[in-house]
Amino acid sequence: MEEIKLFCPATIANVSCGFDVLGLCLEQPGDEMIIRKSSSPGIQITKIVGQDLPLENQKNVAGVAGLALLNELKELHAGFEIEIYKNIKPGSGIGSSAASAAGAVFGINQLLGQPFSAKELILFAMQGEFLASGALHADNVAPALLGGFTLVRSYNPLDVIRLPVPAELMATVIHPQLEVKTADARSVLKHSVSLKNAITQWGNLGGLISALYTNDYDLLSRCLHDEIIEPLRSVLIPGFDEVKATALAHGALGSGISGSGPSIFALSKSKSTAKEIASAMADVYRKFEVDYDVHVSKINCEGIKVL
Amino acid sequence: MEEIKLFCPATIANVSCGFDVLGLCLEQPGDEMIIRKSSSPGIQITKIVGQDLPLENQKNVAGVAGLALLNELKELHAGFEIEIYKNIKPGSGIGSSAASAAGAVFGINQLLGQPFSAKELILFAMQGEFLASGALHADNVAPALLGGFTLVRSYNPLDVIRLPVPAELMATVIHPQLEVKTADARSVLKHSVSLKNAITQWGNLGGLISALYTNDYDLLSRCLHDEIIEPLRSVLIPGFDEVKATALAHGALGSGISGSGPSIFALSKSKSTAKEIASAMADVYRKFEVDYDVHVSKINCEGIKVL
Repeated sequence: MEEIKLFCPATIANVSCGFDVLGLCLEQPGDEMIIRKSSSPGIQITKIVGQDLPLENQKNVAGVAGLALLNELKELHAGFEIEIYKNIKPGSGIGSSAASAAGAVFGINQLLGQPFSAKELILFAMQGEFLASGALHADNVAPALLGGFTLVRSYNPLDVIRLPVPAELMATVIHPQLEVKTADARSVLKHSVSLKNAITQWGNLGGLISALYTNDYDLLSRCLHDEIIEPLRSVLIPGFDEVKATALAHGALGSGISGSGPSIFALSKSKSTAKEIASAMADVYRKFEVDYDVHVSKINCEGIKVL
Repeated sequence: MEEIKLFCPATIANVSCGFDVLGLCLEQPGDEMIIRKSSSPGIQITKIVGQDLPLENQKNVAGVAGLALLNELKELHAGFEIEIYKNIKPGSGIGSSAASAAGAVFGINQLLGQPFSAKELILFAMQGEFLASGALHADNVAPALLGGFTLVRSYNPLDVIRLPVPAELMATVIHPQLEVKTADARSVLKHSVSLKNAITQWGNLGGLISALYTNDYDLLSRCLHDEIIEPLRSVLIPGFDEVKATALAHGALGSGISGSGPSIFALSKSKSTAKEIASAMADVYRKFEVDYDVHVSKINCEGIKVL
């Protein structure tokens, strides 16, 4: 195989009660990437369509992640060209950088005959995330690479668990075109939390994981709360409270901030409910005269796909 | 039915990463209780064998829990006599009060034709726990009533989830005859925890719950850590570090404080390993010249049993 074309999906990190550990993969939106073998060693990003992002290797998450893989493999003579067709907007909070970082390592790994497992690829993709956010986090790249829901149990060593997905689960995501800098979203966090809130949070995360294994949508709904991060970060997202309340009023199982925002997600049990939620969420931002993108998607159980 | 004889098992609360939410039920040790209908209304504790505990209703967890049930049912004319044969030592940290409180409500519910579900009985049994510890906690009474592993997701309203049990899982519990007052065990806790430690804890609890659903003993083992409570409480239990290290050296999947101590538990994958751990743990306390009881038990998937 000389060339591969990929679909690299958006992802929702945290999912309310799973700050820094939980993530899920979407069917839509997603980027496309073409990766091909090249005679010149290293990685060359030859084209980026749809967004104004740097082509230089060391400034692009795909380049950094891909080079991390090649360095580990000591494939110093291998060369790859990468084209990126961005549909996921950077800064939207649905894993734009993760899609590119994960896509690069997935594609290169395929073209090299799969020397690494999908779980091993997470480590390389995390290097791309480090460039994007200054933190080695895996809660977007893990679901992008493995699909479904993922739990990053530990970083040291990396321990990622693939969780099952209830078949009817749908996601709605609205991206208001407001800028929330990841640095701001980080700076509002407190270094300590009350033991009481922490207990509530781990009770909810435990319940949510049980719900995923038992297809218990009611339990899932009861667990989709975040008493720790959401109260701090939601103030950075104008309209958050109203959008969330609207989603719940239209049948969402739960709603919260996607990653560090500003996108807001809602989970629901059917496509028609998910669409209704999308329309109701959009009404809120139209009223506020804020531009938005809205997405309705099944949970993507495969992750990155070869097209 | 006029009379019922019950086996009321010991339980392990917290189970390392699940402070205040997780509990599991043991096959051994356990109390026996005889509960019979009586012509005089209310509850009379007529006999307690094995421990010096108060017979007065309002001072005994079984009386308080039983009356909570009768009050809810408005069965003001119903009367019951209770005999308690204690094998679980009060203050041991393996749910002695929970066994009595849960046993009382389970037995009375049976004799009344089961007006309440097992989950509903938890609320009444918690009233007994309130008498014993000053807190309305359910992490011992829930596994005593439901069996297996239980997750108390929320108290307001009460939301308890029954979790599956990997078939080969065994518990070893050593009870050093040292007094750790529940009040002391509570007073060493801090009101706040670092966000970093909280994330580690909910990652581990999430992983542990996944491990229970997938019979993944390795994952279970990786998750049996407590970076929040154990470092604070273990200093109240002389020999804790050595007992825990010994259990792990003899093949335990994990080891920690049972409830608020002083009992120390270890989980393992086979009866022979569980017995070996018991003998090694006992050696430590023999060396320290501390008396102890040691128990080896399967996980009890039924909870309280009618004998």
